[in-house]
Amino acid sequence: METFKLHILGCGAALPTPHHFCSSQVVNIREKLFMIDCAEGIQMQLRRSRLKFPCINHIFITHLHGDHCFGLIGLISTFALLGRTATLHIYAPQGLKAVLQPQIDFFCQGMEYTVELHEIDHRSPQTVYEDRSVSVTTIPLRHRIPCIGYFFQEKPTLPHIRRDAIDAFHIPISQINNIKAGMDWTTPEGDLIPNRLLTKPADPARSFAYCSDTLFTPQNAEQLHGVNLLYHEATFLQEHELLARKTFHSTALQAAQFAQLADARQLLIGHFSSRYKGETPLLNEAKSLFPNTLAANEGLCIPVV
Amino acid sequence: METFKLHILGCGAALPTPHHFCSSQVVNIREKLFMIDCAEGIQMQLRRSRLKFPCINHIFITHLHGDHCFGLIGLISTFALLGRTATLHIYAPQGLKAVLQPQIDFFCQGMEYTVELHEIDHRSPQTVYEDRSVSVTTIPLRHRIPCIGYFFQEKPTLPHIRRDAIDAFHIPISQINNIKAGMDWTTPEGDLIPNRLLTKPADPARSFAYCSDTLFTPQNAEQLHGVNLLYHEATFLQEHELLARKTFHSTALQAAQFAQLADARQLLIGHFSSRYKGETPLLNEAKSLFPNTLAANEGLCIPVV
Repeated sequence: METFKLHILGCGAALPTPHHFCSSQVVNIREKLFMIDCAEGIQMQLRRSRLKFPCINHIFITHLHGDHCFGLIGLISTFALLGRTATLHIYAPQGLKAVLQPQIDFFCQGMEYTVELHEIDHRSPQTVYEDRSVSVTTIPLRHRIPCIGYFFQEKPTLPHIRRDAIDAFHIPISQINNIKAGMDWTTPEGDLIPNRLLTKPADPARSFAYCSDTLFTPQNAEQLHGVNLLYHEATFLQEHELLARKTFHSTALQAAQFAQLADARQLLIGHFSSRYKGETPLLNEAKSLFPNTLAANEGLCIPVV
Repeated sequence: METFKLHILGCGAALPTPHHFCSSQVVNIREKLFMIDCAEGIQMQLRRSRLKFPCINHIFITHLHGDHCFGLIGLISTFALLGRTATLHIYAPQGLKAVLQPQIDFFCQGMEYTVELHEIDHRSPQTVYEDRSVSVTTIPLRHRIPCIGYFFQEKPTLPHIRRDAIDAFHIPISQINNIKAGMDWTTPEGDLIPNRLLTKPADPARSFAYCSDTLFTPQNAEQLHGVNLLYHEATFLQEHELLARKTFHSTALQAAQFAQLADARQLLIGHFSSRYKGETPLLNEAKSLFPNTLAANEGLCIPVV
């Protein structure tokens, strides 16, 4: 199966602590690396993770609170020092250009690559990135300032060739692509070999959704229906639900409710408030409703299956 | 003796690595904390060091290259989240206001304390901070952009009272300050007790100088003559002296030469280029000329003696 996995670089909330960096993740889809959020210090985390800097061409920022974007200028600057030439695309809600471009102009004079800043309308889902293997669609979140989630969907792939059948029927290599595309095979003797004997079904297309920071927003569940891996913020315990509502965050129980509504295969919670000593109570709360839940942690790498 | 010590938070050069954060130090003088340079991720280092955030009221930035100041906005923002009310003073060469104020305005709306930005002329020494126990004077460095070193000088203190003599001559408490200030004592019998019998000499005033980033600049040695602890950048080995000159940096040997010229008591080298695997060759090179040399390292705390 093709690579599709998630690396956690940071999963704390507003304040970095000795235990958690602030929000940042890298999604590896077929060795293309997509970064989501970019907190302070994330470039050091990136080095520790041994992810390859030059494979990052797209950074998706959920919103312009410091704990989700203070690492951008350092990363941009390091890319320049490493001699990068490929264009870097950064996606974020409106405000990105006003706050980031002057910093780039000041600190990164004479750099040899371009940073392209894309300001995205946060109000309704739209596809902001697409290549032949993946699309990225926005998810309208509800936070104190405009905030966007991101939905990574693998595109359907062609079926697998059955090597044993190809050999048995002496089918020439030149026909492999046709057979992958669905063609049956007729032997020199005139026998028709149906395509289903020559192929195995394609791997199912997988998906990953990132929902942080946000109020519990059940109306988004439909868009993400059947998502393989759902990252949902769980800043607070349910006992602090009022505080969650006041600050436009979710509780661990609400993250689980959302996973259930979206019929997610697996839930990953993060964006843990520094008020809690450990993540176990948050994890247990989510698991009580949605058993297939994991707690994010720096250095964790999770295959999307 | 009163507290005067240096905490190393980061000592790498332009690129942060898994081994080194970029430049930042905290000087503790009688429990007042002065930060020098503020690289990305330094607030996490600050937490690890268990230094008290609220005791930092003054941050001295040498120059506006990212590896010396990208941590400012994160630290300012964290101070706000922690409910800080005391004014924070930041000192740096010209350009500070243009690059930092818009970020503060964007990310720190409604915060309850003031950040006062002081732009300093980098061309000649001047005293930029003074209280009753310490003064901070600038050191004109030579780098690719305007760059300032900082010289922390303890003020002379009063002599120590000899408790045994005070008791022996039955001198009342009310006279202690007069005696500290140099007064002799006349006993009720009319005997004159000279001050030198009642006091021990004051501790000598100590000093710390921070010189980074800079070309070898011997003309600064006179200003720093007799400095107790000298931090001098040693980005390169002498075998890369041409590269040092080209990038306006120093070699380890030049740091040692400068320490020798300034008659420093102890040399601390840092700002290590990431091209070297370890600091031992840099340290050995400096020690070959100036034996009392230490290599900086994250977490190191050095008393100024």
